[in-house]
Amino acid sequence: MLYGMHPVIECLKAGRRRVLEILAVRQEHSGRIDAVLTRAVSAGIPVRRISRDEFARLAPGKVHQGICARVDSYPFVDLSEMLAAAGPQPLLLLLDQIVDVQNFGSLVRTALCAGAKGVIITRKRSAQPSPAVSKASAGALEHMPLVRATNMAGTIKQLKAAGFWIAGLAGPASRSIFNVDLTGPFALVVGGEQKGIRPLVRRHCDLLVGIPQQGPLDSLNASTAGAVALFEAVRQRRVAQAR
Amino acid sequence: MLYGMHPVIECLKAGRRRVLEILAVRQEHSGRIDAVLTRAVSAGIPVRRISRDEFARLAPGKVHQGICARVDSYPFVDLSEMLAAAGPQPLLLLLDQIVDVQNFGSLVRTALCAGAKGVIITRKRSAQPSPAVSKASAGALEHMPLVRATNMAGTIKQLKAAGFWIAGLAGPASRSIFNVDLTGPFALVVGGEQKGIRPLVRRHCDLLVGIPQQGPLDSLNASTAGAVALFEAVRQRRVAQAR
Repeated sequence: MLYGMHPVIECLKAGRRRVLEILAVRQEHSGRIDAVLTRAVSAGIPVRRISRDEFARLAPGKVHQGICARVDSYPFVDLSEMLAAAGPQPLLLLLDQIVDVQNFGSLVRTALCAGAKGVIITRKRSAQPSPAVSKASAGALEHMPLVRATNMAGTIKQLKAAGFWIAGLAGPASRSIFNVDLTGPFALVVGGEQKGIRPLVRRHCDLLVGIPQQGPLDSLNASTAGAVALFEAVRQRRVAQAR
Repeated sequence: MLYGMHPVIECLKAGRRRVLEILAVRQEHSGRIDAVLTRAVSAGIPVRRISRDEFARLAPGKVHQGICARVDSYPFVDLSEMLAAAGPQPLLLLLDQIVDVQNFGSLVRTALCAGAKGVIITRKRSAQPSPAVSKASAGALEHMPLVRATNMAGTIKQLKAAGFWIAGLAGPASRSIFNVDLTGPFALVVGGEQKGIRPLVRRHCDLLVGIPQQGPLDSLNASTAGAVALFEAVRQRRVAQAR
């Protein structure tokens, strides 16, 4: 059950999972809700108005903005599908056990806006796609091809064999991300909030990179560091294209 | 009452506000808590062990990690103090009515790690410094010089008179931030989550800049966009220094 305006709209736009039914609070008549319902009706999706109390039972404790959608389960892809659809010089994001739902959602949103062609997470000890992640991603999760890797080190080997260059985001003491070439097929690895990238995964990276930082704090938040690194790749690619 | 490990540690390290008392849960004896208490004792700050129940009453519903500090009110600075302490070519962050506590905290943390010399917020309709913001900033709020402006447009005029160049962060359709020079005295303006920068403040900016984006979503989250822009300034300054 997806809830909230962005997840429901982006799920409809993406068309990647079947929407069984859209539910809207009876008393809510904003332009945005009406636009979603119109879109749903013209796509042949049943729409039902329910009371605010029924709604609260369906999405307890959630900021649902008066709308939710009953949908099929999240459509994972496999690595070969992701790579087949990725086009030339793709940018990918690998999350090695990000556990926080907000960080996961934020990274997926940022990756989509950076033009990344997919996100790879681990099957274990990672936040998994959920309605809360879709909400935290402003619906980006509905568009982003997502692979669930059983073995992240093995997946990195496969990416290397497919021509990818792999950089693990480590502390600011590592080589500055501003000084490495990110214009080819490139996968950025972001580690979990507490422990960073696991040693085995680290060893499979081509290079560890960091974001130069100042001041008294330890470091940036994982999702912020990931965003800075992804958009450094965007910048470099634009410079390369303009040449 | 600050709560959580990072706010309490960074408040002690920063030494900007008086700490009246540190309270720790009686049953908690992690190395981190013991290190904080040792530091407090050697600074002559009273330390008290209380029960988990007393703690829950002091910081209801908070993730307090077993530690909190009774402190003086937040130490705002005024603009002249901020500028006097800023050094050459300073980087500043102006928040035009950011209302979300997480975004505010995240932006302060990112700004501190980017070497920004101060953050300016509005007196009205903005999230204000609070224990929750200190937590969301991983304690960065305790270090960062913060000005509260009655009139943001007027503050921008003062900054211009002091030699600053002012860029407002607008949508991706604006001029790419990657193509403007951010190496001089520079203030980045980030607008509120819903409406962006207010028209009057916008008109006082030297230029509106955007972060080039791709894909089906509207745009990046305000704190992510701010982070990408701040670290583009960091990158450019490092390139300029290396020349």
